[in-house]
Amino acid sequence: MKKFMDGDFLLSTETAKTLFHTYAKNQPIIDYHCHIDPKDIAQDRHFDNITQLWLGGDHYKWRLMRSAGVDEKYITGDASDHDKFIKWAEVLGRAIGNPLFHWSHLELQRYFDYHGVLNKNTAEDVWELCNKRLASADMSAKNIIRNSAVEVVCTTDDPADTLEWHKQIAEDTEFDVKVAPAWRPDRALNIEKSDFTEYISKLAGSAQIQINSWDDLKKALTVRMAYFDKMGCRVSDHAPEYIYYSHADDAAISAIFEKRLNEGGLSEEEEKQYKTELLLFLGREYHRLGWVMQLHCGALRNNNTKMFGRIGADTGYDTMNNYFPVSEAAAFLNALDSDEVLPKTILYSLDPTNDQAIDALIGCFQCSDAVGKIQHGAAWWFNDNKTGITDHLVSLGNLGYLAGFVGMLTDSRSFLSYTRHEYFRRILCDHFGRLVENGEFPCDMEILGEIVTDISYRNARDYFGF
Amino acid sequence: MKKFMDGDFLLSTETAKTLFHTYAKNQPIIDYHCHIDPKDIAQDRHFDNITQLWLGGDHYKWRLMRSAGVDEKYITGDASDHDKFIKWAEVLGRAIGNPLFHWSHLELQRYFDYHGVLNKNTAEDVWELCNKRLASADMSAKNIIRNSAVEVVCTTDDPADTLEWHKQIAEDTEFDVKVAPAWRPDRALNIEKSDFTEYISKLAGSAQIQINSWDDLKKALTVRMAYFDKMGCRVSDHAPEYIYYSHADDAAISAIFEKRLNEGGLSEEEEKQYKTELLLFLGREYHRLGWVMQLHCGALRNNNTKMFGRIGADTGYDTMNNYFPVSEAAAFLNALDSDEVLPKTILYSLDPTNDQAIDALIGCFQCSDAVGKIQHGAAWWFNDNKTGITDHLVSLGNLGYLAGFVGMLTDSRSFLSYTRHEYFRRILCDHFGRLVENGEFPCDMEILGEIVTDISYRNARDYFGF
Amino acid sequence: MKKFMDGDFLLSTETAKTLFHTYAKNQPIIDYHCHIDPKDIAQDRHFDNITQLWLGGDHYKWRLMRSAGVDEKYITGDASDHDKFIKWAEVLGRAIGNPLFHWSHLELQRYFDYHGVLNKNTAEDVWELCNKRLASADMSAKNIIRNSAVEVVCTTDDPADTLEWHKQIAEDTEFDVKVAPAWRPDRALNIEKSDFTEYISKLAGSAQIQINSWDDLKKALTVRMAYFDKMGCRVSDHAPEYIYYSHADDAAISAIFEKRLNEGGLSEEEEKQYKTELLLFLGREYHRLGWVMQLHCGALRNNNTKMFGRIGADTGYDTMNNYFPVSEAAAFLNALDSDEVLPKTILYSLDPTNDQAIDALIGCFQCSDAVGKIQHGAAWWFNDNKTGITDHLVSLGNLGYLAGFVGMLTDSRSFLSYTRHEYFRRILCDHFGRLVENGEFPCDMEILGEIVTDISYRNARDYFGF
Repeated sequence: MKKFMDGDFLLSTETAKTLFHTYAKNQPIIDYHCHIDPKDIAQDRHFDNITQLWLGGDHYKWRLMRSAGVDEKYITGDASDHDKFIKWAEVLGRAIGNPLFHWSHLELQRYFDYHGVLNKNTAEDVWELCNKRLASADMSAKNIIRNSAVEVVCTTDDPADTLEWHKQIAEDTEFDVKVAPAWRPDRALNIEKSDFTEYISKLAGSAQIQINSWDDLKKALTVRMAYFDKMGCRVSDHAPEYIYYSHADDAAISAIFEKRLNEGGLSEEEEKQYKTELLLFLGREYHRLGWVMQLHCGALRNNNTKMFGRIGADTGYDTMNNYFPVSEAAAFLNALDSDEVLPKTILYSLDPTNDQAIDALIGCFQCSDAVGKIQHGAAWWFNDNKTGITDHLVSLGNLGYLAGFVGMLTDSRSFLSYTRHEYFRRILCDHFGRLVENGEFPCDMEILGEIVTDISYRNARDYFGF
Repeated sequence: MKKFMDGDFLLSTETAKTLFHTYAKNQPIIDYHCHIDPKDIAQDRHFDNITQLWLGGDHYKWRLMRSAGVDEKYITGDASDHDKFIKWAEVLGRAIGNPLFHWSHLELQRYFDYHGVLNKNTAEDVWELCNKRLASADMSAKNIIRNSAVEVVCTTDDPADTLEWHKQIAEDTEFDVKVAPAWRPDRALNIEKSDFTEYISKLAGSAQIQINSWDDLKKALTVRMAYFDKMGCRVSDHAPEYIYYSHADDAAISAIFEKRLNEGGLSEEEEKQYKTELLLFLGREYHRLGWVMQLHCGALRNNNTKMFGRIGADTGYDTMNNYFPVSEAAAFLNALDSDEVLPKTILYSLDPTNDQAIDALIGCFQCSDAVGKIQHGAAWWFNDNKTGITDHLVSLGNLGYLAGFVGMLTDSRSFLSYTRHEYFRRILCDHFGRLVENGEFPCDMEILGEIVTDISYRNARDYFGF
Repeated sequence: MKKFMDGDFLLSTETAKTLFHTYAKNQPIIDYHCHIDPKDIAQDRHFDNITQLWLGGDHYKWRLMRSAGVDEKYITGDASDHDKFIKWAEVLGRAIGNPLFHWSHLELQRYFDYHGVLNKNTAEDVWELCNKRLASADMSAKNIIRNSAVEVVCTTDDPADTLEWHKQIAEDTEFDVKVAPAWRPDRALNIEKSDFTEYISKLAGSAQIQINSWDDLKKALTVRMAYFDKMGCRVSDHAPEYIYYSHADDAAISAIFEKRLNEGGLSEEEEKQYKTELLLFLGREYHRLGWVMQLHCGALRNNNTKMFGRIGADTGYDTMNNYFPVSEAAAFLNALDSDEVLPKTILYSLDPTNDQAIDALIGCFQCSDAVGKIQHGAAWWFNDNKTGITDHLVSLGNLGYLAGFVGMLTDSRSFLSYTRHEYFRRILCDHFGRLVENGEFPCDMEILGEIVTDISYRNARDYFGF
């Protein structure tokens, strides 16, 4: 029996151990997509206790507690931080098979030097231990990032954002981690949302361009992209439900956009045409700027109206959609490729049954612009677990060039999530170890070490151009 | 090499063996969903020979025989029981990888004390042995149930059913197994079926209410639910092709229902609206009564017209549909939840590629009403095999709170199927054993034993309230 | 650690080794579906160098090179054969997890007696070695086939094809491998294609029947089927995006067909009706002739317009579609079955998430016409790898009668692909070995050997009637 989560956690062969400890473990981290608030970095935030850090905004943990029948009072309600932590510990201690069990214990080991098991019996001790540790200087936001060997952090930012915190972080000459903005124009795309026109006004203000037409919109976005680019942005992000494709000409989109500005109602087809053409415009710009286009597809959000009314979005009531017509995704990519303006693109799917469809699809748009120009993004959100990550690696290996994969990201709101890179690297090395020990790939440590280093670090560095 | 199906069958680690033999094996069985005929229990049926018991109505076995090219004469035709059994044995002996191989041998071991292999060479011996054994008193319906450590059996019953056999069973003071009805109102929902109006008359008769309107229908169903409740019913069941959601107001549904009563034709949309609103009404009632709502989604039935004409329904010609729009399922659950009338619900999907989508979806409607208020039902029908069960456990573990799972059911027409609980428990313990031996979960037998006991027995007891 | 790809490659248990070496390895090959050009066989083609043989037309390899960022010049461009090979070797050496790694090394071992590893370091040596070997007489098309223990090759042929090369091959009394045509009438079905009417003229010419009506078309196809049958054809093939079903009567189809002949536009529904009814007609004819109907479903082709314009079809720009409504597939099969004219049928799906749906579906149309009358075709194209093949075997085992499976085919354009039968057989034996060593199936070598032999060879022989 392997020891519970020791130094060789998830490494089931000697080859895996060698690969991880020699080639993967010490690689720097390029966290090219996360949801950390740059203000917390700029202000070098401290956390009063482990509940603030762990349960303050982590909807993964909230969902698990609700699934275990815990009262909302102990989740997002008015129970004390102490009591919330105790409830969490009770649930976690029985959360067999759930990635939160591994994530939480990796964080306890790496950041709190706690190597025991957190459950109802140890909850009080861990509460004390963590809070004591959090009081120390090296547990500030900047120090956690620094000590996690992070080279680059890409946050997720609205086009209208001033990026003031990014500026402030860049000016701190003591802090040599690059914190770059990432461009996420979802609000400009979501023409069906009730606050769309309000948002367009906000965007106009930030670009200092009146937006009365489709052309104005494109100009304003171009201005903001130039600003983001100047501020170090190398990557965009989008969260469409699926990759739609419904072409319409400029005149039609102009009419649709103006109708919406005048609070006219749009058909679903019109909404889709607008989104298609705006995303095509953006893709073309990303290509010009050398940015990467990330497409996080398949989230179906805010499914619980009652709880949305009480506690708002991003509180654990999203799910995966299972509508992803490959034919439209192919048409979208082809439209850009036909004009030779397809940027480097990363497709993520929340529905893991699309793994193979995506891996086959991206093969249709690869070329010498880059190694793995079109990427199948790392196992994401509901798939960010041992089986999800493994399935992604197996599928990408079967259907594509796994050695060119840009690897892991945290996609997290937490400063402790850098351990997920470790989690990923262990699973990667274990996957390779099995292939080698099973005689399916030669035991050539030069090549294997090179590939592990590439996927852990170098591919992302080269792909994004940091 | 492990011995073929010995006492440690499917238990590949020491941890798995300990968990199964210490915590799982001897737990009682709550078989909260099956298709056993209560008349057979009430009359304490005996079976003349193993063909009657095994091949009399088991469409799983029939399908396998047809797939092996066996003539229908030996399946549902007029061959002798002896000859049918011999054909079955020939096919089974080569059925590598099929769960029927395991199910059949578990039944032979547990009920007939036969520990050999059934194939063409042993068919005659097994025929003799089984038939001799079937003649003994302890092989009656009641004794099989009793000796299988069953505490509760939930049959599957139409709202118009008199439940006379349940009454008779309850009156047998010698038989202390609870045999409760389960409410399955599919015929009231299936407005598109040619015998719908005929069924409504039958329902009216059983409720002693004239049904001329949508309101009458709801009243009649309410009367019958009260009766079922009095008779011990704690759980409903439905078999929609998928979880539809198409809202219409009461006036519209009234019109649709009356049109249908007058033999008017309905559009597909009208049918869907009727079904949606009736299921919402029923869900609301289940919530009031404290019943569980089971939704067995995704069967596409009677695909072979020729054979349906010859031998009718439930004869092995059903398949899994692959249409399951998550967005509609989410809308349906949300409609009930928004009114705070969402009952405890178990979602089953016949298409295993929906495992993750369902596990993510149910997380959106969990709350402190119950541990695992919304459940992803056990791997069902085409998925009731080692890989299907394992995949279900892995997915539920990754995305939810596996420790709160209500566990296995037989879903069977046969009295020998209680061994499927054993099959499930072995797979469950093996899954946990692997996690522990791989260092992914602590080897804490107190917590592991508690979870195994919960999933094997206690969760179902507490969830259904038996 | 197992040695890299030695004699026991992929055989992880003693049972697997015994099964493979004793029962599988030496079985003849019936390659019932491939894309080899019969002209190459007739003319007993030689290859000047390994690039011609490996990279001349293999879009699998092209895709992998593009995914690794190789310039098109070295793929389909004007670089020298030597330089192309070197680029390929560089990519292959890092293609961990990709089946091309195994396929290429199996081919190097079996046909070139090279047992090293091909990568950037060995590229020049392997180039020399292969080209030297290719110069020898036993590396001609016929000799490769002969030495691969091939009994039957089925090519893929258009109804208008003269089959002249098949004639010529049959006349070579020195070459005792049966090379039969397979009937692939896709161009007669693809009424939406711009060259449809042109094709109909060609078909008319080959059948020597004027085609002015739907009846003429059916007559012409019948004439050609009779000719194919005379030439040894036992199997048809089709590549629909999915299995459609939209019934229309003969008058409607006549009108649709004539409208199209007169260059009139058709609606999507009309196209679907035409395809449905023509495929039903063909299925009926296959049943009469005793042919097998293959349906290769789910390819979405030519997704890259730019590259299609440059280098045409079948160059690595196809992908898998994920639209496969089971309800229509069921209706299609049922339409033929209801008239008792459903031929033996093999359903392939390119989207592996349909594995279980197909295995459940085929169970609805099995009967004593044949063992496994309706087959789920071997893991195909994007799924032709260790995990894809294993998943297919597991699913077919769970849901059907795996022992009746007709087994592997190459589906290849290359003369070296017979090693894929070996690859498949190793995976098959390993799968069985695991079941046996895990106590899930008895270690009865008589039965196991029989099943392995059946799936490797005898089932195909009996099913197709060669």
